[in-house]
Amino acid sequence: MAAVDERLQRWLRERYEPAVARQPERLAQFVTESGLTVEPVYGPGDAAGAPAEYPGEYPFTRGVHPTMHRGRLWTMRQYAGYSTPEETNERFRYLLAQGQTGLSVAFDLPTQTGYDSDHEAAEGEVGKVGTPVCSLADMEALLRGIPLDRVSTSMTINATAPVLLALYAAVARKQGAPLERLSGTVQNDVLKEYIARGTYVYPPGPSLRLATDLAAFCAEWMPRWNPISISGYHMREAGATAVQEVAFTLANAVAYVEAAAVARMDAGQFAERASFFFAAHNHLFEEAAKFRAARRLWASIVRERFGVTDDRACALRFHAQTAGVTLTAQQPEVNSVRTAVQALAAVLGGAQSLHVNAQDEALGLPTEESAALALRAQQVLAHESGVADTTDPLGGSYFVEHLTDEIEAGARAYIERIDALGGAVAAIEEGFPQGEIAEAAYRHFRAVESGERSIVGVNLYAEDEAPPPPLTRLDPARTEGQIAHVRQVRRERDEAQAQAALSRLVEAARGGENTMPPILECVEAYATLGEVSDALRSVFGAHEAGG
Amino acid sequence: MAAVDERLQRWLRERYEPAVARQPERLAQFVTESGLTVEPVYGPGDAAGAPAEYPGEYPFTRGVHPTMHRGRLWTMRQYAGYSTPEETNERFRYLLAQGQTGLSVAFDLPTQTGYDSDHEAAEGEVGKVGTPVCSLADMEALLRGIPLDRVSTSMTINATAPVLLALYAAVARKQGAPLERLSGTVQNDVLKEYIARGTYVYPPGPSLRLATDLAAFCAEWMPRWNPISISGYHMREAGATAVQEVAFTLANAVAYVEAAAVARMDAGQFAERASFFFAAHNHLFEEAAKFRAARRLWASIVRERFGVTDDRACALRFHAQTAGVTLTAQQPEVNSVRTAVQALAAVLGGAQSLHVNAQDEALGLPTEESAALALRAQQVLAHESGVADTTDPLGGSYFVEHLTDEIEAGARAYIERIDALGGAVAAIEEGFPQGEIAEAAYRHFRAVESGERSIVGVNLYAEDEAPPPPLTRLDPARTEGQIAHVRQVRRERDEAQAQAALSRLVEAARGGENTMPPILECVEAYATLGEVSDALRSVFGAHEAGG
Repeated sequence: MAAVDERLQRWLRERYEPAVARQPERLAQFVTESGLTVEPVYGPGDAAGAPAEYPGEYPFTRGVHPTMHRGRLWTMRQYAGYSTPEETNERFRYLLAQGQTGLSVAFDLPTQTGYDSDHEAAEGEVGKVGTPVCSLADMEALLRGIPLDRVSTSMTINATAPVLLALYAAVARKQGAPLERLSGTVQNDVLKEYIARGTYVYPPGPSLRLATDLAAFCAEWMPRWNPISISGYHMREAGATAVQEVAFTLANAVAYVEAAAVARMDAGQFAERASFFFAAHNHLFEEAAKFRAARRLWASIVRERFGVTDDRACALRFHAQTAGVTLTAQQPEVNSVRTAVQALAAVLGGAQSLHVNAQDEALGLPTEESAALALRAQQVLAHESGVADTTDPLGGSYFVEHLTDEIEAGARAYIERIDALGGAVAAIEEGFPQGEIAEAAYRHFRAVESGERSIVGVNLYAEDEAPPPPLTRLDPARTEGQIAHVRQVRRERDEAQAQAALSRLVEAARGGENTMPPILECVEAYATLGEVSDALRSVFGAHEAGG
Repeated sequence: MAAVDERLQRWLRERYEPAVARQPERLAQFVTESGLTVEPVYGPGDAAGAPAEYPGEYPFTRGVHPTMHRGRLWTMRQYAGYSTPEETNERFRYLLAQGQTGLSVAFDLPTQTGYDSDHEAAEGEVGKVGTPVCSLADMEALLRGIPLDRVSTSMTINATAPVLLALYAAVARKQGAPLERLSGTVQNDVLKEYIARGTYVYPPGPSLRLATDLAAFCAEWMPRWNPISISGYHMREAGATAVQEVAFTLANAVAYVEAAAVARMDAGQFAERASFFFAAHNHLFEEAAKFRAARRLWASIVRERFGVTDDRACALRFHAQTAGVTLTAQQPEVNSVRTAVQALAAVLGGAQSLHVNAQDEALGLPTEESAALALRAQQVLAHESGVADTTDPLGGSYFVEHLTDEIEAGARAYIERIDALGGAVAAIEEGFPQGEIAEAAYRHFRAVESGERSIVGVNLYAEDEAPPPPLTRLDPARTEGQIAHVRQVRRERDEAQAQAALSRLVEAARGGENTMPPILECVEAYATLGEVSDALRSVFGAHEAGG
């Protein structure tokens, strides 16, 4: 094929080879298990008439980079965090030793909603769904022994993202790692919190401002950091369809670009650093097509709606996580089959980074063994299955191309409806995406109830269950220690310095100044997450559920 | 798409709808996880110019039947057998209770090579890699409580296939199940035993005759039975490439059709009842393409070489098994990821039936739990992943179509070389396929040694190992019981009747008469497998290794 396709030859010469010069291929040669040569990409060739789209080219249906996983595998980034910063640090080091290539921090609910571990609102929640981080001391413990200039870190944090990013930056400064070399992501996507996830703190307006303050700060000081990960995952988990997941995520993304413009950021600059986060659900081909459709649709939005002419800013980069909602508490070891197929969808769809759920996550915190097994699934896909050895291997499949078209068209239609409602913020305030998702969730629930949709071990081949496998359990003494520790930090700091920093933050928040530098000053003076959040609450107010 | 493609409309009307009338679709509607409609098949449409090939049409690249897995899922057929017929029967009933849809019998080595459990050649091997079956009493115990007119049974048996099929037929007769309603398969592929598997008994010539006697018997008395399963699996396990697997299997198939012609069977009749058995190895797309290539190549051989005009006789139906050789004893739970991806390749490639290896098979006999988990993998693919809801979902993929072409061309070139050597039997006698496979196996071994090919847990991310999980162990008392039992059968039968039947068999074997009816007479008189095999050895001689 390669011999007859001039256009492919030109692409190889003009696009692929320069990309390889920057990022060499992973292997000296790519061959199938049987030794057949595998080329960087396949297309219909000149003979079939239709010109092929190549990876790394607008609109990026086939991938955001010419070399994709031949050059560098996706980042294997298992989400972890529980108990205390110290225990979470142990888990991080364990996962890195098992071959994980990036960190992903889960924070507990108090940390996500701006309460210190010793606050009464934190009771019973400290260290439960993630690690608590209240102060610079906690962040140092979390990252102890991990060189921040050499690892990339994703932090699932939204309303309090500015505080956690400031803490991360402060630790890097103490390690002597220059801010401009830090790489990673903060989720920092508050809009979807009002739709599906619920860990908002402030009302939508101030939240958008904090999010764009953070983006502007990164643009200036942390150019390799992704300041936002616009997330469809939680909406999908709440019951959204694949089309809704793409539509509502990109509609929120439009709102962020517009808010960034208000903050006098360039749309192209914002879009180039924005990243995305999607679910990898059950239906292998629908999911792979979804990622292709999301790339193509977003590229056209950035170019056509925002007039961005730099193609690189049009490329949608994403992290994927296998769909937690598909895990069954029944026969948990079957989950490793589900997650393998879901992870495959993410890889075939061209993911930049991936978390595979542990098979026991429906039962509680994963054990070290089950966390390692989930990572192994990624490694088998990467190194044994051959699916990472050419780009967009599904490209051309009649079924997948059809699904790609359908999902793109469906999502585009939704975005037009949201535009008609006045954009994502207005649509959310009106409950539009929430209602659409609730309806889809109800349809799914009915289909499972009626047996129209089958779930192995639940409504098909259910078994009398053996006792669940051992899980990681929280140690109450650790929680007590965490609470005592945050109080100790407050006692031992320079109180005047901390209070002065907090006052400056209040002033900045009241005015139009970027809030990030004063937040950084606060956390470096050992002001706590709760105190910083209280300072901002005193200016912005708190958002009430349903409000 | 459906609206614009007239050819698709015609196919739906003329081919698909009549097929659905015979075999209704599994579900009232096929939709993705998100509710998008899934059509029976996708093609490029009239717009793209190239006419699509449809499933159920010569040369069957896209599947052997118009409805494929939308009509009926593949048969979930987990290979099982160990210890004694009684214990194996328990495992069969357990797997059927877990939702397995067909049986697959593993026999121990003595049974496969024509020795009773009490023969000195059987020592240490009784019940080890499968169940022993020495007599009608054993076969009855193996199948107790299983209605043979309603289950399909595959028996992995070759040199002694005529005896085991006769025993199966005899049990059916005792159950009152008419022979014409029995469905299943005997492997009965002796040629590949000389290449790779080694459980031959007689020299190639008489072996071919026994195989075709069996086929002729089935054609007359057991029309729903597949009299042969021409197997690439074991050659692949021995190190063959995907191309070699297809080539050597189809070359052997050609030899069988030619031998059948000698036995005055019609080539089309033989080809229509022949089935195939392939491995599902690691490389997802190569494997899926392999199955497509094998179908296309075999269809053209049957039509062009043998002049068969009935398209149905050109369709290659196959059983697949995940590649045992890829299982690692290290970190055995990672095998469930490997086998999930391999099983997916088989489903995407259009398998008619499938065995998924248990994760602990590299360590020993699978436990009940691990056998059930392997079956669950099939069920998740069938009912949750959506991959069974349209036919040939990879069709059109530039990469997969390219691999399909490459594998077909490579296999065709090998078959031409084998033709030049005088056909498969001559090539085997000369050691040609054996040598090619050995060379490929050596290349693979070198690639693993050098780290050029990665195996997770072996040369990548190896760990200090925890103790292996509990395995099913053989109970020596059971083996003793089995030995005592075969002796008891010989003592208690009508000795004169048994000896008379054996004499008639010797006579038939010496002459040109079909050996199957006298073998059936022998086993119904409780002559044992060893005795029947000895009778045939007395006529045909025994094949020596390397001979």
